[in-house]
Amino acid sequence: MSSPNPPTASSDSATSFHMGEDEFRRHGKEMIDWVADYLYGGVEQHPVLSQSQPGAIRAQLPENPPASGESFEAIVRDLDSIVLPGLTHWQNPNWHAYFPANTSGPSILADLISSGLGVQGMIWSTSPACTEVETLVMDWMAKALDLPECFLSEPGPGGGVLQDTASSASFVTLLAARERATDWRVNEDGLGVVDPRLVVYTSNQAHSSIAKAVKMAGMGAANLRLIDVDAEHRMDPVALQRQIEADLAAGLRPCYVCATVGTTSSVAIDPVAEIAAITQRHGIWLHVDAAFAGAAAVCPEFRAMHQGVEHADSYTFNPHKWLFTNFDCNCLWVRDREPLIRTLTVMPEYLRNAATESGKVIDYRDWQVPLGRRFRSLKLWFVLRFYGIEGLQALIRHHLELAEGFERRIAGHPHLELTTPRNLTLVCFHHVDGDDATKAVFDAVNQTGKAHLSHTRLATEDGSDRFVIRVSIGQSRVEEAHIEAVFKLIARETERLTKN
Amino acid sequence: MSSPNPPTASSDSATSFHMGEDEFRRHGKEMIDWVADYLYGGVEQHPVLSQSQPGAIRAQLPENPPASGESFEAIVRDLDSIVLPGLTHWQNPNWHAYFPANTSGPSILADLISSGLGVQGMIWSTSPACTEVETLVMDWMAKALDLPECFLSEPGPGGGVLQDTASSASFVTLLAARERATDWRVNEDGLGVVDPRLVVYTSNQAHSSIAKAVKMAGMGAANLRLIDVDAEHRMDPVALQRQIEADLAAGLRPCYVCATVGTTSSVAIDPVAEIAAITQRHGIWLHVDAAFAGAAAVCPEFRAMHQGVEHADSYTFNPHKWLFTNFDCNCLWVRDREPLIRTLTVMPEYLRNAATESGKVIDYRDWQVPLGRRFRSLKLWFVLRFYGIEGLQALIRHHLELAEGFERRIAGHPHLELTTPRNLTLVCFHHVDGDDATKAVFDAVNQTGKAHLSHTRLATEDGSDRFVIRVSIGQSRVEEAHIEAVFKLIARETERLTKN
Repeated sequence: MSSPNPPTASSDSATSFHMGEDEFRRHGKEMIDWVADYLYGGVEQHPVLSQSQPGAIRAQLPENPPASGESFEAIVRDLDSIVLPGLTHWQNPNWHAYFPANTSGPSILADLISSGLGVQGMIWSTSPACTEVETLVMDWMAKALDLPECFLSEPGPGGGVLQDTASSASFVTLLAARERATDWRVNEDGLGVVDPRLVVYTSNQAHSSIAKAVKMAGMGAANLRLIDVDAEHRMDPVALQRQIEADLAAGLRPCYVCATVGTTSSVAIDPVAEIAAITQRHGIWLHVDAAFAGAAAVCPEFRAMHQGVEHADSYTFNPHKWLFTNFDCNCLWVRDREPLIRTLTVMPEYLRNAATESGKVIDYRDWQVPLGRRFRSLKLWFVLRFYGIEGLQALIRHHLELAEGFERRIAGHPHLELTTPRNLTLVCFHHVDGDDATKAVFDAVNQTGKAHLSHTRLATEDGSDRFVIRVSIGQSRVEEAHIEAVFKLIARETERLTKN
Repeated sequence: MSSPNPPTASSDSATSFHMGEDEFRRHGKEMIDWVADYLYGGVEQHPVLSQSQPGAIRAQLPENPPASGESFEAIVRDLDSIVLPGLTHWQNPNWHAYFPANTSGPSILADLISSGLGVQGMIWSTSPACTEVETLVMDWMAKALDLPECFLSEPGPGGGVLQDTASSASFVTLLAARERATDWRVNEDGLGVVDPRLVVYTSNQAHSSIAKAVKMAGMGAANLRLIDVDAEHRMDPVALQRQIEADLAAGLRPCYVCATVGTTSSVAIDPVAEIAAITQRHGIWLHVDAAFAGAAAVCPEFRAMHQGVEHADSYTFNPHKWLFTNFDCNCLWVRDREPLIRTLTVMPEYLRNAATESGKVIDYRDWQVPLGRRFRSLKLWFVLRFYGIEGLQALIRHHLELAEGFERRIAGHPHLELTTPRNLTLVCFHHVDGDDATKAVFDAVNQTGKAHLSHTRLATEDGSDRFVIRVSIGQSRVEEAHIEAVFKLIARETERLTKN
């Protein structure tokens, strides 16, 4: 039967530019093998730290986009020959820099499904499962960490949401705190008409994203107080209390405190319970940033660090660091979703819908900076189900055991010294001869390409600070042999440089 | 030769919880087939709009995470039986709602590689290729759209960066404008001490993200001016000029104008050149939001909409809408990168490195809200190479041709009327009997599950507004047959409801 309006052949043929079904199946399977070759062995063949010079990668690629399409094979050839040598390999088990940014099989495959589905979960009605799986998985994750019930979405009013990063989690909670402290007047009238000035508190070891959030929110770096820390780099609650009192006496309004559970430099754990006692007394929003360390709470023996979190207004951690879920995957929970939603809500006509108006659904668009959102919870759902709590616990404990072993080796080395006691899987140490010697060892080890370490500076007892090597253990596939190897490498370079 | 410290068997065995290599290859290939089955046919078997009731998906899933790991097959079974029926299918070629959110074979596979590589491109040194490919691809994309040279990173000082969404692009440029207008005083001292008040302008048809950005930046919705539009919903430059003069006379400081190239409701194109003449005269930051429409500029015949963009401070569009690159992929260009970087820069000790200090590299962390970033440019690189400019042009022209055909059919229908002339691929129409009749047709069509349309309200000449059906054409695989089918469906429901 012929159609009354036959397809315009000339126009419909444009779709032939798409990758065909057979081609997708073939190249897709090749790319699965490509990723498998990379992750299960290949990645260890590359220097961990890229040896590229600035501009060297771009110089190998054409300056203009191709007029006609190229074969998939040609693109993959450039990926292999130009891109791969220009990467620093975070999935190499000899990666001990910064914090891990782990990926895993179930996470990669869930993200592949998410890319294929291509749904938009900005509001419940634009893809209900995208929202409901996320809400459930956030409750699962809260239970896996044994977070207080106030953060669960059932029965509410709390709840969890996935953000891209802890930077965004801190930023949106700061905005909610800003609005709550001013009767939602800043959103309406702007900070210029709000008096008194709002003040934000965190420790001088807090992540740089807090200072960035304060600036973005228009609150002014001058209104951010970096509270002193104790000898183990934990926020001093007495100093916090004193600063809040001074600000109140000066007619200012304390608005937001960010406590860090696991600082970036040394994984120091702020005393959340003592801080919470202060924020409660003054009605200040308490945010807890456990970006890296939070993952450890899947094991009951590490949950003491969360004492006091039951009094926090918000809590965040990153499964994309140490929980085998590839970037980007940040978990944020709030004890009351209303201030967050009220701060970030938008409702243009083109998004109005019956489900939203019924009040029975969550529209995550109102919990974040962007409007659009992909099906990001799928990867966390796959990870929690594939590993089970048991698998996650075993891996976290494994990494802890490796870190203990590494710490023992450093402690036993005649020229090296632990700078601060190990916190979880981070070992901070320095050369007994001082900064120049430490820096020489650091550079020498990184230049071998056989392992990658990062550094920081930490205050010493006399008030000066010290250049410190950070060895952060927790890459998905790290095993005893890698720890043994990196210690031998450090020891070898230390001996070579100390002799000279 | 036995190792002096043999691996702790009990601990290393924890890694057995990971997905093994063979298992990854097998499940990976199954998931490639799963995605192929879905995209190349399967997706059309589902109602486009999910029929789920609130809570129905969650109710089918356990309330607690599993103690022990589950098989990959069990997870995929739930994906098929519980998640899929709960989705609204944006990749169904009968999707004509909102704007498209296209995915494609090369984009999906590039994102798979990005997940597998798991690198962090927060700064150049943490994975040089991640930064250099992005910088190059942003230049390629600017050339593909024939954007003015001021936005190219070579030779600078302009340049491009990928953001998650246009919401974030507008937000970060608003922050840069806020700082530039106040000698970087807000970042330092906060909006509370800045005088005069800063004012932001956009049309009353602009995307809701502009109002959200103004609130997040602490500038106050009261300082956002929604400028009137003409009969075709384009910003009226005379009204803009008048408002700016009134604000100046009142002692306020105009700071940022957002012109829209392709509004959400009706794809109206603001007169950028006339607006730019005003912003230049007053030294106001001009941002151009072409989130949806920008993609059309790959074809020279649609570039007139960009007249005046050469005077803009920033320009943004989303390849994740109509350019076959899956969410999230937003392109933002600035004519001078310095204000953006100066506004968003952070430099904690643990990120210091020689490359950054040399000034020879880009650290994209300073161009965005989050710190971390995945290798997002890979998917745009794959898309530009696989399709070539020629393939992208053919598909854009194909969609335009389909939209013209649909517009002709609506124009010829006795009970339906075009609300406004078609702009690019968006056809807005209503029932001649008024809102109730339009709404009845709209609901009836969506309830069939055979196509998905969205709606808006548009002002009429008498000042009231009208409920309008939006048919947005441009899903990756849409062909003439789908357009024919959705028109027949609309016509059938219109006739049925009009007779009653």
